[in-house]
Amino acid sequence: MNFADRLIAATEEFGPLCVGLDPHAGRIPDLFGGDTPEGVEAWGLAMIEAAKGRTGVIKPQSAFYERHGWQGMRALARILEAARDAGLVVLMDAKRGDIGSTAEGYAAAFLAENAPFPSDALTVNPYMGVDTLEPHVKAAEANGKGVIVLARTSNPGSADFQSKSLEGAPLYERIVEALAPMIERLKGESGWSGLMLVTGATGPQEARRLRELAPDALFLVPGYGAQGAGAADAMSGFVLRGNRLSGGVVSASRSVSFPPEAQSASSMDEWRTAIAGAINAAQADLMVAANR
Amino acid sequence: MNFADRLIAATEEFGPLCVGLDPHAGRIPDLFGGDTPEGVEAWGLAMIEAAKGRTGVIKPQSAFYERHGWQGMRALARILEAARDAGLVVLMDAKRGDIGSTAEGYAAAFLAENAPFPSDALTVNPYMGVDTLEPHVKAAEANGKGVIVLARTSNPGSADFQSKSLEGAPLYERIVEALAPMIERLKGESGWSGLMLVTGATGPQEARRLRELAPDALFLVPGYGAQGAGAADAMSGFVLRGNRLSGGVVSASRSVSFPPEAQSASSMDEWRTAIAGAINAAQADLMVAANR
Repeated sequence: MNFADRLIAATEEFGPLCVGLDPHAGRIPDLFGGDTPEGVEAWGLAMIEAAKGRTGVIKPQSAFYERHGWQGMRALARILEAARDAGLVVLMDAKRGDIGSTAEGYAAAFLAENAPFPSDALTVNPYMGVDTLEPHVKAAEANGKGVIVLARTSNPGSADFQSKSLEGAPLYERIVEALAPMIERLKGESGWSGLMLVTGATGPQEARRLRELAPDALFLVPGYGAQGAGAADAMSGFVLRGNRLSGGVVSASRSVSFPPEAQSASSMDEWRTAIAGAINAAQADLMVAANR
Repeated sequence: MNFADRLIAATEEFGPLCVGLDPHAGRIPDLFGGDTPEGVEAWGLAMIEAAKGRTGVIKPQSAFYERHGWQGMRALARILEAARDAGLVVLMDAKRGDIGSTAEGYAAAFLAENAPFPSDALTVNPYMGVDTLEPHVKAAEANGKGVIVLARTSNPGSADFQSKSLEGAPLYERIVEALAPMIERLKGESGWSGLMLVTGATGPQEARRLRELAPDALFLVPGYGAQGAGAADAMSGFVLRGNRLSGGVVSASRSVSFPPEAQSASSMDEWRTAIAGAINAAQADLMVAANR
């Protein structure tokens, strides 16, 4: 099935939450062995189990596995395989970007049919130009995958260049304008496109503007929860379909994977209960804001 | 020693060539076992041996190791360790870029004192803003490393956004202007800064302009050789020091690591001779253009 159709079906079944799997230094509970490649792997596999049936979408952040070297990348590969087997849609957050033949290497790593890091979509950086995105879009077309382009990110520094005027409109708008043909190419039967845009929850006005420019692109919205934005702001770029806001996923990481009750859990049962509770609470918070 | 001082000393000893280690699909000779993680590792270790004494600087491209999964990343780690032991300066070409806490993860992977992928400098993408570069600069200050920021790349798509006017000047110039304090922070005794800029050999005018804007930043110049630019164009942003052009490194990959004579070699001795010849020829070509 087309990636966009799979993603939107997952949000219709479970809600718009995307659970971030970001094993920050010092946060893996001792229950799993702490901050080692083995600890990260055990934690990630347990997170997949806890997420299954409560969310349809997860987003691992590559940096936190790379800092553990190849053993960390082995943990990532095994977590991705478990996510695939659990039927979760995996948005791989690696923010890659390079010229053609090199971009093909990244596409082979994450988006190919038998990719060693099996993912449903990959975040990519558009700075180097539209030609550098083409190998990813080609792989996505061939294999029913998605490509997630950084547009307006959630950090304060997004004001440095992204929001400045490039020949009359903000740089991030110019980028989205240039993506129109690729958005069209990755459209599914739902009408949504698997050429997704990153639009930070901390910029609700910008998200609404991007929705005007790209009515069919699914959004990946970071910045909800620990980074400070509420559910309504996070869904500013969503649109009504039936009686529910739709059009992307809202990602949360620390608040659902390292809630205080999980960090202080003294048994795996306690930890599982804490994670399930945090995911259910975030999903419910988003659903209240989404339902009309 | 400061990274910039080490890099410039290496170019003074051997010349401005930086040897790219980019194991493209289908290019690893059968002598090494072909396109497998083991083949990539054996080839990379042999390239380090062949490069030693002929160049001071190498640049592995992460994508080509990632496409082989964690086993490819293990090969990369071992090649990096061999390069360090051989005294080569390693510019890790991974073009990472993410918000603060995530950027710290990438810095831990590549620039920390005991990084699992030991590198002397890391290429980073500035699109997300100056705050996203800070963790890399901080790690570089602490550990005598460098940070290489994409400015004007060598691909045709660099015209899409990089060269367009952002509030009155090309985007890549605006980025370089914003980097001034970081360039200052990573300056060595040589006067050169380890906050390096990527300036494609295919844009000699742009390189000269960037040299005006950032007189102390070392340049990493891709696009020489297989991508089409000649030695003189590649060093457009360099400046005379004594009777030689100086100010960065010029990278070549396919032309020095997969020359036809090496691809058709029937023994390791033949392969070594071919690689040594290709590296020496590129170094000589650049030196002719550099010497005044």
